[in-house]
Amino acid sequence: MSSHPNGAEVLVKTLLAGKVDVCFANPGTSEMQFVAALDTVPGMRCVLGLFEGVVTGAADGYARMADRPAATLLHLGPGLANGLANIHNAKRGGSPMVNIVGEHATWHKWADAPLHSDIEALARPMSHWVRTSQCSADIARDAVDAVNYANSSSGRIATLILPADTAWEPGPEVGTGFATPALGLPVAAVLDQAAKALADAAPGQCAIMLSGRALRAEALATASRIAEKTGARLLAQQSNARTERGVGRVSVERVPYPVDQALAKLQGIKRLILIGAKAPVSFFAYPGKPSSVLPPDCEVIRLAGPAEDLPATLSMLAERVGATKVAPRLSTETKPALPTGRLTADAVLQAVGALLPEQAILVDEAVTSGRALFNFTGGSAPHDYLQLTGGAIGDGLPMATGAAIACPDRKVISLEGDGSGMYTLQALWTQAREKLNVLTIVFANRGYQILKGELKGVGVDKAGEQAERMLTIASPELDWVGLAKGMGVDAAQTDSADELVKLMRAAIAKPGPFLIQANI
Amino acid sequence: MSSHPNGAEVLVKTLLAGKVDVCFANPGTSEMQFVAALDTVPGMRCVLGLFEGVVTGAADGYARMADRPAATLLHLGPGLANGLANIHNAKRGGSPMVNIVGEHATWHKWADAPLHSDIEALARPMSHWVRTSQCSADIARDAVDAVNYANSSSGRIATLILPADTAWEPGPEVGTGFATPALGLPVAAVLDQAAKALADAAPGQCAIMLSGRALRAEALATASRIAEKTGARLLAQQSNARTERGVGRVSVERVPYPVDQALAKLQGIKRLILIGAKAPVSFFAYPGKPSSVLPPDCEVIRLAGPAEDLPATLSMLAERVGATKVAPRLSTETKPALPTGRLTADAVLQAVGALLPEQAILVDEAVTSGRALFNFTGGSAPHDYLQLTGGAIGDGLPMATGAAIACPDRKVISLEGDGSGMYTLQALWTQAREKLNVLTIVFANRGYQILKGELKGVGVDKAGEQAERMLTIASPELDWVGLAKGMGVDAAQTDSADELVKLMRAAIAKPGPFLIQANI
Repeated sequence: MSSHPNGAEVLVKTLLAGKVDVCFANPGTSEMQFVAALDTVPGMRCVLGLFEGVVTGAADGYARMADRPAATLLHLGPGLANGLANIHNAKRGGSPMVNIVGEHATWHKWADAPLHSDIEALARPMSHWVRTSQCSADIARDAVDAVNYANSSSGRIATLILPADTAWEPGPEVGTGFATPALGLPVAAVLDQAAKALADAAPGQCAIMLSGRALRAEALATASRIAEKTGARLLAQQSNARTERGVGRVSVERVPYPVDQALAKLQGIKRLILIGAKAPVSFFAYPGKPSSVLPPDCEVIRLAGPAEDLPATLSMLAERVGATKVAPRLSTETKPALPTGRLTADAVLQAVGALLPEQAILVDEAVTSGRALFNFTGGSAPHDYLQLTGGAIGDGLPMATGAAIACPDRKVISLEGDGSGMYTLQALWTQAREKLNVLTIVFANRGYQILKGELKGVGVDKAGEQAERMLTIASPELDWVGLAKGMGVDAAQTDSADELVKLMRAAIAKPGPFLIQANI
Repeated sequence: MSSHPNGAEVLVKTLLAGKVDVCFANPGTSEMQFVAALDTVPGMRCVLGLFEGVVTGAADGYARMADRPAATLLHLGPGLANGLANIHNAKRGGSPMVNIVGEHATWHKWADAPLHSDIEALARPMSHWVRTSQCSADIARDAVDAVNYANSSSGRIATLILPADTAWEPGPEVGTGFATPALGLPVAAVLDQAAKALADAAPGQCAIMLSGRALRAEALATASRIAEKTGARLLAQQSNARTERGVGRVSVERVPYPVDQALAKLQGIKRLILIGAKAPVSFFAYPGKPSSVLPPDCEVIRLAGPAEDLPATLSMLAERVGATKVAPRLSTETKPALPTGRLTADAVLQAVGALLPEQAILVDEAVTSGRALFNFTGGSAPHDYLQLTGGAIGDGLPMATGAAIACPDRKVISLEGDGSGMYTLQALWTQAREKLNVLTIVFANRGYQILKGELKGVGVDKAGEQAERMLTIASPELDWVGLAKGMGVDAAQTDSADELVKLMRAAIAKPGPFLIQANI
């Protein structure tokens, strides 16, 4: 280290002081001082992704499991742009994240060199907080602010842009003043309103919709007590960052993705109490279908949002309705039988439900193929269930990567579509390099299966020849075994359920990554 | 087709009327009407990319070779975000492009559904023109404006955002009013100034720096006439969208990437005349190095920019200095010998120079490995040379894909780094599906070789262990043969120059894609 630490070294030390000690990175020239600082300042685990979507998706998965932010290290505007889709997913899911984006030196911006762009403008749509450090003296303060901001509310996206000279000039003292702001509690009037709704409603006419930390085991148990006491329905938002599921936990149905199914599911609800969830809307618009999937006469009570303490909110509500001593309805062990015969999407899910190891992390970006997953895993071993929260496909493989970094002792099972998997397949290389315990199962249906349904949804009954070519990824077919091995991940494929079970058992028993192409 | 064409059908017809008849696409639900319209409206060639960076990079490569825009079809904010890096490259290179970005229906935006984001804000930093269609009646006018804007100046980025209901509601008449605005010419005073600079300067003290269409064969010949007459130096900008090179053409040196080499190359220049080029600056900032790489006393004369007709400007200048009858200095055939022995980066370039077929399109994203390319290809068969123009790596494989769509009868040779290639490797699948004549050569040096130099540039003499892990993509090594075959592209690898020559000859002779992993 030089006699006086430079800005990059102070930044790394400040991040570490703020308990940000994992950095997913795809650095370039403007980030070289940060990279050099990794060797002069011990303690930061830096994980290379071969594409920025891997980097930001891994930070998302890490944050969901670690409940604290990772840093990302990205290269100027285009590097940030490549990572934006998964930052969007993280933002929608309430994951905290500290993005460090390298920028040209302050005195070089006028030159409009080829890589120059308006980084702040690119960052803003997907960030809650954006700042450019103006000189190396500001770096400690800016890093503290970024970490504090990321840790605020239920988790936010902070993007700090770092001109190269702020990294190589002498830095200030290491930053202090880290503070995680306390989450709020609902006001009494709304709590009263919710309690009254629960008390007044006929069974099934009042529902509680949960998301965020309300989907952790203890909070779910509290919610179940309330439901058992009042006859209210329990529902989860359609997509959630992390749900604790399995035997001994409360199983909660989600709002279905297809708009007609969502409308049917929510029919008859007169009052909806939101705890961490947003009022349910259609994922897309369709001609003649509504945006809101709630019954038109349903009253919505926003009891607690991402800025509130959701488990505490549930406890307060349980207290109000006298449910604290009621027994929650916990799942009992009901593992599905092992599938046999020709592989189907449901057979894969059945095998997952049967074989899921204790404390597994189940990452789901199987899109259409995964829709029936909850039918097979409610009574499986206790596990965490992570979903795509922002609809931007390409989060699954990176998310599994980041979750495995956060929880090295747990098995990650990553369910992936063949279409969605291709967006960020480079994540497999990081899984190989870091020897992560990730079993990836690719549902090889050779198409954007979901879009075939969507085409109907917008009024086109049958795809013509050109449309078919846009929705199908056959000719040529993807060989995921070759792709995985090409990146150092051992792999196999099968169209037999029996063989799948054999492959899964072996992969679960063995540390390190493995990929199964399930030909369904 | 329904009795009355919907907005999407009118859009496709209007694009076709504007001579935009290739669409690179990665559609989602909000673009399903456009996809359906491909079958009801004949004439649009739609090419699927499995990732949006492939889509936009292919549109860039197409535009460079076709001299007109392709359309892209992208899925909401995250889909656009995934394509932004290569839109940035296209913008920097002056490629025209018409991006169609699907958006939620106008009446669904309030719902803030999971995929919602501020698409206009995301589009603006990388676009010259951004508009959201407000209703289906506007679609024809908006599409005409987008195409006209893309065709203005030397080529611009137009991004049209299309709410789903504007696509499915009944559309207006097909758009008319396509007009390519005439390019400007330099004013007489600046032309006089340039002519005087050329006349007054001692040999080598005045230089003409070219880019854009000034690098096509005829314009280059005119530039050479001026140089032969006046003793001026001819230079090309460091990165250029397309340069016509090879035997019978004028070979022009580029400004080198390394800042010290650039400073040395430009030493002694007292007056610099810019024709389509920008005044040269350092690609990145380095401690103690200048932003401008021109001598401090160099006078810069901006004769013509992207909004001017560059070949006409050169002809006018040639007239002024009495050079119209002077013979240009054209390259004679000087193919390098075939390399033998152990493969090196230069041996690959040597083989390329020797074997380049007539009218090949040479796409260069080989980064460090390709730096000596001009030493080997100046006297090769006539060819087009396409470079990374915006510094955002991941444009090479897509660009080669788009160039091959634009010029199906020409062989594309795509030189790719193993680090940069991984950003958008999905392009290989599109090459396989469309059976494109692309030979990809991956320089497998197992690292971000360029960054090892950059680390030194910012003052770090030796990478420590953690830094080394960020700059190296060994452990595991990438198997590009497996990756290519996994996407349907036949491939081979070698570390022998003789074997490389054999593989290249076979691949050049055979239609369709092939990939060679050159282990250097």
